[in-house]
Amino acid sequence: MRNLLRTETNEQRETTRVEAFSDGVIAIAITLLILEIHVPAIEDASPDLLIQALRDLWPSYFGYVISFATVGIMWANHHTIFRVIARTDHYLILTNLLFLFFLATIPFPTALMAEYLGHPAERIGVIVYSGWFLLTALSFNLLWNYASRGDRLIDANADPAVVSSITSRFRLGPPAYVLAFLLSFFSTPATLALLLGFALLYVLPYGNVNR
Amino acid sequence: MRNLLRTETNEQRETTRVEAFSDGVIAIAITLLILEIHVPAIEDASPDLLIQALRDLWPSYFGYVISFATVGIMWANHHTIFRVIARTDHYLILTNLLFLFFLATIPFPTALMAEYLGHPAERIGVIVYSGWFLLTALSFNLLWNYASRGDRLIDANADPAVVSSITSRFRLGPPAYVLAFLLSFFSTPATLALLLGFALLYVLPYGNVNR
Amino acid sequence: MRNLLRTETNEQRETTRVEAFSDGVIAIAITLLILEIHVPAIEDASPDLLIQALRDLWPSYFGYVISFATVGIMWANHHTIFRVIARTDHYLILTNLLFLFFLATIPFPTALMAEYLGHPAERIGVIVYSGWFLLTALSFNLLWNYASRGDRLIDANADPAVVSSITSRFRLGPPAYVLAFLLSFFSTPATLALLLGFALLYVLPYGNVNR
Amino acid sequence: MRNLLRTETNEQRETTRVEAFSDGVIAIAITLLILEIHVPAIEDASPDLLIQALRDLWPSYFGYVISFATVGIMWANHHTIFRVIARTDHYLILTNLLFLFFLATIPFPTALMAEYLGHPAERIGVIVYSGWFLLTALSFNLLWNYASRGDRLIDANADPAVVSSITSRFRLGPPAYVLAFLLSFFSTPATLALLLGFALLYVLPYGNVNR
Repeated sequence: MRNLLRTETNEQRETTRVEAFSDGVIAIAITLLILEIHVPAIEDASPDLLIQALRDLWPSYFGYVISFATVGIMWANHHTIFRVIARTDHYLILTNLLFLFFLATIPFPTALMAEYLGHPAERIGVIVYSGWFLLTALSFNLLWNYASRGDRLIDANADPAVVSSITSRFRLGPPAYVLAFLLSFFSTPATLALLLGFALLYVLPYGNVNR
Repeated sequence: MRNLLRTETNEQRETTRVEAFSDGVIAIAITLLILEIHVPAIEDASPDLLIQALRDLWPSYFGYVISFATVGIMWANHHTIFRVIARTDHYLILTNLLFLFFLATIPFPTALMAEYLGHPAERIGVIVYSGWFLLTALSFNLLWNYASRGDRLIDANADPAVVSSITSRFRLGPPAYVLAFLLSFFSTPATLALLLGFALLYVLPYGNVNR
Repeated sequence: MRNLLRTETNEQRETTRVEAFSDGVIAIAITLLILEIHVPAIEDASPDLLIQALRDLWPSYFGYVISFATVGIMWANHHTIFRVIARTDHYLILTNLLFLFFLATIPFPTALMAEYLGHPAERIGVIVYSGWFLLTALSFNLLWNYASRGDRLIDANADPAVVSSITSRFRLGPPAYVLAFLLSFFSTPATLALLLGFALLYVLPYGNVNR
Repeated sequence: MRNLLRTETNEQRETTRVEAFSDGVIAIAITLLILEIHVPAIEDASPDLLIQALRDLWPSYFGYVISFATVGIMWANHHTIFRVIARTDHYLILTNLLFLFFLATIPFPTALMAEYLGHPAERIGVIVYSGWFLLTALSFNLLWNYASRGDRLIDANADPAVVSSITSRFRLGPPAYVLAFLLSFFSTPATLALLLGFALLYVLPYGNVNR
């Protein structure tokens, strides 16, 4: 009995540490985003000039809002799946690191997109930006598929309806981001509207997964 | 019995993870503030020249102190409300993310205010700075209102007097920051004095909420 | 009985959250130090030129090592006192925030000292650097004094010998940093040697406090 | 009985806090790596020009991937050893700080290597980069040797086979990084291939340590 208890506690400690490390990386990545927006440095600017300069930063604000919302939702989703994941193993740690790799890199495509929005090379920035979101979504689904396939690492006490509801919901992510990625070759505004829309969709209640 | 215990533990784990992520974001935002103050780089400066250059950075020090104190107090307040919040749900996570969005952005208005203090465009900086604090305070109150309305997510064992004392105290935040924001259109020193004063007020003991 | 248990658990959760937030701030401050050392950017440098440029960064390396070691030890000391602190209150949170304020600011005096070491204004940098360490040490002692005075927030089960041993040891910190600060007005090498020495002293075993 | 329980809980709280602080430092170091890759700022670049500029950043991407993977694996290894470490003491905290020192510094040699890859001074960057990984690996082994020698800080319930399997595996780290370091004096591509290979090797399952 004691050993059983001990083992259960150890398993919980391990998933707790994976969650804590992931939370750390996600919290840092989301907070570093603001460092990519630079205060305009105009020697003795008049109020009007500064207002204009602040307005000209709109692509940075826009990218900041989309990336913050998307990373925030990814954190919430990560939190959702770890509510039913009870154990870690070698490949869970690896797929989780892969997901964190894509997520931690997001400040770079965000800054790239913002830098060139409204400039001749804006398409390149938007393709890289939406493509990176697609890769991040794919790595998140890989993580969940690995953990949930055959209930590999799922808590024995977890409600199967909750588990399959998570699976159905996350199945929508990759095709949605494929769509945004394909759209990025044709229309910048439509792509960004879609990426923002995906984030706002999350505001709606959906089933009983996260409530 | 076991299931009850398990559920309680799970609920606690979830609020713990929301707190941990929020702590991470707040800790990073408060620590990144220092990166916005740049060491003056003067080739072979004399001691007097360096002292002068360090003195000229006073708006940066001033903004750093106000923002550090305000974010620190927001952390303490977040800590206070999560002492009585026992559960999370979809909208708690969303309103918490909204609050973290405003809080994580604070380094930008802080740097903007400091950059233009004492320059022709200083009003713009102070309006944005105090306005951002107002938005952050509003989002914090939204979070608390959502959690506490009808004791929605409040711990059943929490002392109702403590809960209503928290509510009364936080009710003062938004009008205070509205005042600072309105004042920012007329007087920079009065606005900054007020913002600093709000932070220092916290030093006083008040009721039994946080003691 | 249940209420007692619950209260104890709540108290522990609160000190745990204060520790977690402090750990976050300290971990970020210590890790941000490296951002203050900039890779030399020399167009098509020869190997010898790059080696020379890397050598010229020695004040930055030196400041990095002293600050990393000092902040690391402050973390260990914070960890030591929270082993016997069982409760938090309003002023503990405030004095802890004050300590974190001084600690989180350390990257700035570190970069200032490194920037001017070996230049005409080096004295200013060293005075600010050692003075800031003094303020940080004072704020740490304020935190400990507040918590330990009359066993205000000390765990009832804590060994009094451990508590008084912590008090005796930390009593040495402020006079040591006063000495370094006074010395900084006369000799840069002696001041930096002393600051490095304080950090290295910690390597020695001392009593039973931290072992 | 109660005292025993209390002590065990206290010991666990302490190792938990060491792990939490280490997780914080590692999570920050791994996430800061992206800040070293700067978005090319080319006024009104054509799409082709931006694509070219993004391609020219390949040494940065390459260094980012190697460093992210290596730091991620070091985190997983740290997580592995703390599964069997049950107690902390003065020297564990010190050797852990030494390991964190080397790890937190990694963004600097990474940026140095990336800055000069493909330029006349590339050898210097690669020597420093692989040398720093060697020092980090040595400090990690020092940490594990200290904790595991004579089971000094090992959990009494830990499976001895697991402990000795960890020891055998980590014994391979230093010679591998010595090899990469020596190679760095002769061939840049071979060194980087080796460093990347060490990271990828981790993907393979190995014994039962981490599964």
